[in-house]
Amino acid sequence: MICMDVKKIKIAIIGAGYWGKNLVRVFYSLRDIVDLKYVCDLDEKKLQYIKSWYPSVITTTDTKIIFNDSEINAAVIATQVGLHFSLAKEALLSGKNVLVEKPMTETREQAEELVALADEKNLILMVDHTFLYTGAVREIKNLIKNGEIGDVNYFDSERINLGLIQPDVNVIYDLAVHDISILNYLINEKPTAVSAFGKSYITKKTEELAHINLEYASGFTAHIHVSWLSPVKLRKTLIGGSKKMILYNDIEPSEKIKIYDKNVSMDYETETPQSPIYRSGDISIPRIDNIEALEFEANHFINCINRKERPLSDGKSGLRVIEILEACNRSIKEERKINL
Amino acid sequence: MICMDVKKIKIAIIGAGYWGKNLVRVFYSLRDIVDLKYVCDLDEKKLQYIKSWYPSVITTTDTKIIFNDSEINAAVIATQVGLHFSLAKEALLSGKNVLVEKPMTETREQAEELVALADEKNLILMVDHTFLYTGAVREIKNLIKNGEIGDVNYFDSERINLGLIQPDVNVIYDLAVHDISILNYLINEKPTAVSAFGKSYITKKTEELAHINLEYASGFTAHIHVSWLSPVKLRKTLIGGSKKMILYNDIEPSEKIKIYDKNVSMDYETETPQSPIYRSGDISIPRIDNIEALEFEANHFINCINRKERPLSDGKSGLRVIEILEACNRSIKEERKINL
Amino acid sequence: MICMDVKKIKIAIIGAGYWGKNLVRVFYSLRDIVDLKYVCDLDEKKLQYIKSWYPSVITTTDTKIIFNDSEINAAVIATQVGLHFSLAKEALLSGKNVLVEKPMTETREQAEELVALADEKNLILMVDHTFLYTGAVREIKNLIKNGEIGDVNYFDSERINLGLIQPDVNVIYDLAVHDISILNYLINEKPTAVSAFGKSYITKKTEELAHINLEYASGFTAHIHVSWLSPVKLRKTLIGGSKKMILYNDIEPSEKIKIYDKNVSMDYETETPQSPIYRSGDISIPRIDNIEALEFEANHFINCINRKERPLSDGKSGLRVIEILEACNRSIKEERKINL
Amino acid sequence: MICMDVKKIKIAIIGAGYWGKNLVRVFYSLRDIVDLKYVCDLDEKKLQYIKSWYPSVITTTDTKIIFNDSEINAAVIATQVGLHFSLAKEALLSGKNVLVEKPMTETREQAEELVALADEKNLILMVDHTFLYTGAVREIKNLIKNGEIGDVNYFDSERINLGLIQPDVNVIYDLAVHDISILNYLINEKPTAVSAFGKSYITKKTEELAHINLEYASGFTAHIHVSWLSPVKLRKTLIGGSKKMILYNDIEPSEKIKIYDKNVSMDYETETPQSPIYRSGDISIPRIDNIEALEFEANHFINCINRKERPLSDGKSGLRVIEILEACNRSIKEERKINL
Repeated sequence: MICMDVKKIKIAIIGAGYWGKNLVRVFYSLRDIVDLKYVCDLDEKKLQYIKSWYPSVITTTDTKIIFNDSEINAAVIATQVGLHFSLAKEALLSGKNVLVEKPMTETREQAEELVALADEKNLILMVDHTFLYTGAVREIKNLIKNGEIGDVNYFDSERINLGLIQPDVNVIYDLAVHDISILNYLINEKPTAVSAFGKSYITKKTEELAHINLEYASGFTAHIHVSWLSPVKLRKTLIGGSKKMILYNDIEPSEKIKIYDKNVSMDYETETPQSPIYRSGDISIPRIDNIEALEFEANHFINCINRKERPLSDGKSGLRVIEILEACNRSIKEERKINL
Repeated sequence: MICMDVKKIKIAIIGAGYWGKNLVRVFYSLRDIVDLKYVCDLDEKKLQYIKSWYPSVITTTDTKIIFNDSEINAAVIATQVGLHFSLAKEALLSGKNVLVEKPMTETREQAEELVALADEKNLILMVDHTFLYTGAVREIKNLIKNGEIGDVNYFDSERINLGLIQPDVNVIYDLAVHDISILNYLINEKPTAVSAFGKSYITKKTEELAHINLEYASGFTAHIHVSWLSPVKLRKTLIGGSKKMILYNDIEPSEKIKIYDKNVSMDYETETPQSPIYRSGDISIPRIDNIEALEFEANHFINCINRKERPLSDGKSGLRVIEILEACNRSIKEERKINL
Repeated sequence: MICMDVKKIKIAIIGAGYWGKNLVRVFYSLRDIVDLKYVCDLDEKKLQYIKSWYPSVITTTDTKIIFNDSEINAAVIATQVGLHFSLAKEALLSGKNVLVEKPMTETREQAEELVALADEKNLILMVDHTFLYTGAVREIKNLIKNGEIGDVNYFDSERINLGLIQPDVNVIYDLAVHDISILNYLINEKPTAVSAFGKSYITKKTEELAHINLEYASGFTAHIHVSWLSPVKLRKTLIGGSKKMILYNDIEPSEKIKIYDKNVSMDYETETPQSPIYRSGDISIPRIDNIEALEFEANHFINCINRKERPLSDGKSGLRVIEILEACNRSIKEERKINL
Repeated sequence: MICMDVKKIKIAIIGAGYWGKNLVRVFYSLRDIVDLKYVCDLDEKKLQYIKSWYPSVITTTDTKIIFNDSEINAAVIATQVGLHFSLAKEALLSGKNVLVEKPMTETREQAEELVALADEKNLILMVDHTFLYTGAVREIKNLIKNGEIGDVNYFDSERINLGLIQPDVNVIYDLAVHDISILNYLINEKPTAVSAFGKSYITKKTEELAHINLEYASGFTAHIHVSWLSPVKLRKTLIGGSKKMILYNDIEPSEKIKIYDKNVSMDYETETPQSPIYRSGDISIPRIDNIEALEFEANHFINCINRKERPLSDGKSGLRVIEILEACNRSIKEERKINL
């Protein structure tokens, strides 16, 4: 009993907005292994809300109290993007393990600095790429790894809905960040070039819809369509393999993944001219665990701290995402393809 | 009675493949106003098939018989794309009105030559952009024209399925040609720039999937996604207006168009910083006539001949489509944006 | 060549309405093995229509010409239901094989008489229960026969849409006839009791919506919901097995059958009280041939004539359907359960 | 400020199972107007769970503490059905207002006794028919009340899914109770007859699927299909009016109600025989507030206590539901239609 109490990871959550509240709920639910000591926000109303639901939590507007508290093992950062870097840096410098909201930082340089700092300090730096912890994405990863769909030809994703237009980042940093993290996780290859096309109709400042093309040395390509200006909410990804194809529809409550036993190939044994051969077999919909991804992820963060293990979505994976996000913005600005 | 018989337009259909057979069926069904005299194809089997269903039709492998027959008022050309130009040219030179399958020609120069020739000869030159004759597209045209959706911000179309990979043209010439013709019809503005991205995985020759971005001086933008390598068949277009938004799903048997009374705007009267305002009202699904588009179109062709009127999808509209198709192919080849 | 010509089955189609036209098209398309000699209807306009599309066919308003023509091997009857019996009887008496539209007759007595007459004359009597010839229903039959879904617990079908209200029969005779024929085909057991509930809102004469419950000695039960007054068109059947369950959605263009590896069972080894155990595995969607059912069926009719074989949907199966239809109507009239 | 504190309604929740936990969450969230003092359950584990999330709440296994606490204004009862009557009765006798889970009681006599007791004591007796508080059902009520759909001809509901098989009540008491409460709310008429058909395949004790027919003097009819043995989850209700028809699909996240401007009527001015006339116009999908129904309902309960007003789902409406539930069970047992 005493033993177990000693092992409880003491954490602080910085940022109590929409996502911060989810993190508070989930980390509080892990109270057998986590002691959620602080929640910090500059908005007193948000702190009152937290206090009224979780009276045992200390609320504060001052991050210094957290960073100076030697009991705290880890800081979870869920503020606006512009503060991620400075808060994560301060947390690491104070010896805290860090889970930071996506995107990890605003720039590649910042991301590199955090990664180096975490390595130097031997601390966990993890990015909240929640989708990597969903049953659906893990199932797709397995299907690809096991060779079931053959060579992966393309990844084509659509993540569109009405709003919420962010005040500080564009739709790529807000929505495409998910697809890019999923893509990087599924495909063991870095893109060689990025072309992005974006447009702002409402704010006339930050892109509200965008299309991104990614090219890879192997011939694999990816396309990502994101929008805050769609009347309908769609979260749909097609993954085309040489043997099978996958439709991943995250809107579906229970049938998120459909595996189509379909492909097209050339019959190189027939006479010239060769014609494509189409094969259409059954469709299967694998059963997927419906554990909440955020809970799975929070557990993973705590386990990585306890076991000193590298998380799935570590700082390096966060950095690889930032590199692509940055290239997208450069491509839009310079109206050309950016080679990586 | 005699009167009516005199007015019957005598036509020949050249090409009896998949689409040619549809044309034969539809023009034969108009036998009150049309006399389908000839069907021509190089493949004797296809001609036998036509003969067995339509014993009254003369089948031939020789286009000269058609072009030399002074009774023939019009030729309908439904061959492979590579033959469109030469056959349409010969038909016009022989004094025949022409309905030619989409895309009108392989190159812009050819399209321009046909348009000029038809003008010179005072003959109807019409392109079979069937979608312009569907109830759904005509309804969307009305919604835009009446100002019901406000300023049109974007057009985003997805036309994907498994196959059929064409031997002579890429997926842009085969599928995006539909979206481009619809786009040109709906939007009274010519694009200023085209960027296209395409890839061939199976044949290693012609693009089997592609993404196209179109830019316009007014700020309107369009994106078209076409693929022969999708496990699912999708035909979905989003049209975002400043007042309302449209989802056009051509797969739906009866509810093809949904009009969302949704928009986002900036409140310029509030203090700085301004926040977007989201409005979400009702959705309406207008009833659409389900007259077969091809029948509607065939009637239109015959009426244009009889009344010496310019068809909706005339040679010039066909030419404007070819210009964009050609720019797409150049963009893919030169890996850069093409200014028009 | 002569041989083949000799073997061609000479047929006449009586009734050139909506379904009759389909039959004409399909039997004409089988002209390698069928000679469609006559089409008969009382409506001269319908005959003109047939003649204009199929000039080689003899059209007539007089069935006697057909029955007296010794060349004719088979009569296909697609008139209104009230004429099925007398025409089929006359055809059989004239030595013609018969394919009759569903429902076979108006009464059980009539059905029994036709079955007896066909047996006596050694002629084929087949009922046009088209759904038995679809890939979907044949696939479900296989799944049941192979034991893949275990014991079949229930069959629950919904076949509803707006109209067409029939002038001569109620919605049970028009629509539930399909479900009953499918049910009889899938389940090798006769119902022991039928309760039906129906209502007429528009015509105040014939039921426009109905619900039918069927009970069986084995414990299996079936329910059929049919309606002409639904704003949406649904064709959905659930089949619950002790091992797996099937959703058959006939509206789906390609994914008509979903097999759910789901079941509920009692764990009789645990202590009292026993709790149900739920198992949810993958879902599979088998590929189904999309041969047109009517073509498949027409071929089957001709083959049965040539080989003197009993058709799948023979007179006896038609009779079994009529028995249930009649019990439904009695149940509605007498407002009670009818034991069979 | 003091004023407001004085007015806070002090409540106890009895039963901390699946639904009880929801009630605790919702009533706790209303802490500006509610003081959730006690949560009671016989299962200590459930109480520990409540205590760990809501440390301020007193947990107890003894209902006497609650009924004897004169501070308590209201008891919310969410136990198994068998305890509803005795707990509600004791609560009313102790002078507490009562919100009781659906179905209100096991028998009509019990329901009548509670209604009489609440009247006598001048206390609020409310039944948790949650669906009456959803935006969708309130919208449908308005559409009917405003005459927009004309005379209501039929109500046809399907509420099916896999499990959860209840240990104490059958699928009618568990699921059809929702449809019956909605039906009673929408239609100002009492049924004259009930026929139900149910079957138990798994437990061999309580019905796991059922079909219910309800008849009304006006000619209106209703059908309800409920099942715990369906592989798919469906919540779909069709409501057919003489002017328009409604499809209410509660599974849809945002487009729950579709209003079809469709109807069928007889043209009594045409010659004999009259033919039905079909009208198909637009479809509209009204925007519906997505306030959580349970929160809306909890607020309503508190307001009714404060203002001494009769709740929408008062004891009498609960009683009317029980009458129909009881008739369903009798109909199944006696295998006949039950006149009410």
